[in-house]
Amino acid sequence: MISAGRDFLKSNWEILERYVSDQRKGIEMPPFEKPYQKDAFLIKLPDFKDIADFKKKSLFEAIENRKSHRKYDGKPLRLEELSFLLWTTQGIRNVTPKATFRTVPSAGARHPFETYLYVINVEGLEEAVYRYLPLEHSLILHRKDRYLREEIIHATLEQEFVGQSSVVFIWTAVPYRTEWRYGPASHKVILLDAGHVCQNLYLACEAIEAGTCAIAAYSQELMDRFLGVDGQDEMVVYLAPVGKISKG
Amino acid sequence: MISAGRDFLKSNWEILERYVSDQRKGIEMPPFEKPYQKDAFLIKLPDFKDIADFKKKSLFEAIENRKSHRKYDGKPLRLEELSFLLWTTQGIRNVTPKATFRTVPSAGARHPFETYLYVINVEGLEEAVYRYLPLEHSLILHRKDRYLREEIIHATLEQEFVGQSSVVFIWTAVPYRTEWRYGPASHKVILLDAGHVCQNLYLACEAIEAGTCAIAAYSQELMDRFLGVDGQDEMVVYLAPVGKISKG
Repeated sequence: MISAGRDFLKSNWEILERYVSDQRKGIEMPPFEKPYQKDAFLIKLPDFKDIADFKKKSLFEAIENRKSHRKYDGKPLRLEELSFLLWTTQGIRNVTPKATFRTVPSAGARHPFETYLYVINVEGLEEAVYRYLPLEHSLILHRKDRYLREEIIHATLEQEFVGQSSVVFIWTAVPYRTEWRYGPASHKVILLDAGHVCQNLYLACEAIEAGTCAIAAYSQELMDRFLGVDGQDEMVVYLAPVGKISKG
Repeated sequence: MISAGRDFLKSNWEILERYVSDQRKGIEMPPFEKPYQKDAFLIKLPDFKDIADFKKKSLFEAIENRKSHRKYDGKPLRLEELSFLLWTTQGIRNVTPKATFRTVPSAGARHPFETYLYVINVEGLEEAVYRYLPLEHSLILHRKDRYLREEIIHATLEQEFVGQSSVVFIWTAVPYRTEWRYGPASHKVILLDAGHVCQNLYLACEAIEAGTCAIAAYSQELMDRFLGVDGQDEMVVYLAPVGKISKG
């Protein structure tokens, strides 16, 4: 098992010399984001670019002060702040017919992720699970239920601090987006890509007096069930609860 | 193969309930960095914290402007700039007997990476392969050879732009550092961690008028041979050539 795991760290890129990807077969490219119902109610995220305080934060300071935070002070996140965090992690800078170019790099610009938010304490949003639509920079309601908090704590193996955050970022992978081009060389790069995304979240939190602590320790079955994804064509890969921090 | 790859994206954390790790067995923790010869010549990296221009760069701008760069203008990197890039990617903020705390997060603060640099055009450094010592914030010479450039281009599957950069960051994983605690749950998080590291490099490049483009497409055998690592207890996991960019 250790040996198979180690093999997975290695590049198998040379396989692609012999492999005929779906892209090369001429099969249509999968969509940049999971489709949603035409009549869904979109919550437009506010523009944050005029808000001075997080534009002032220097990269140097953000990197210097970054650490993992599991204790939050219970203050709500502002919707502009959430909008900023979503832009830093999956925001789209440019769209062409063939690719989206975002604030984070992704192998072949495939961007195989969906971002779900379990919102606990964000101004202007009800407690519920939402999905981020990067092309629209909007949210849609994904799931509303009475025992979400108990469910997610249990699914993250009883990490109680998850329930004390203001919002939990939950990233799923839709592996076919990358496989369409890279086939069996996709899965290593999907995880590298997820790391890029999460690092931006860590740094962006520093700019809004918030903190996060990424979570890879979760029950796959229970987290997939929490989101209602099938664990086959879409599965949870990484989580990060975010909450406000009193500094100094 | 696709199905095994997808399985690898999933959390297997619940295995650890039954698994007795080397840490739990009382086996000594592996060192934070690969040992080096006592009489090795250490190149102390300069302090960069007084250099105004990269301290001014805002996080917002770094994130907004980040993109992958495969064309460089051929100007050398200053040693202070390289020092800054190394600090942002693996710099140590705090050391305890049990862990190092760095500018990037790592599962269980295990930090399973070594950073090698293939230096092509950095002021004050000869063209050669160096290894970064994060505890000492220093470099040691790792390998000097006549055909390094040809070798690395070939090992990265003829990506010529690698040879036009000023320095190539090459990260290896020493998987046992993470396995010591997390056994079979280690390999997914090692790749997530490598993504964290590389994202900081992307952003830090923005602060010094440089650019990078991460590379997962390489020959494992040839890259491991380039560094002289065994591909078993230590193997290349990710690369990123860096070069100066003329902006505007």
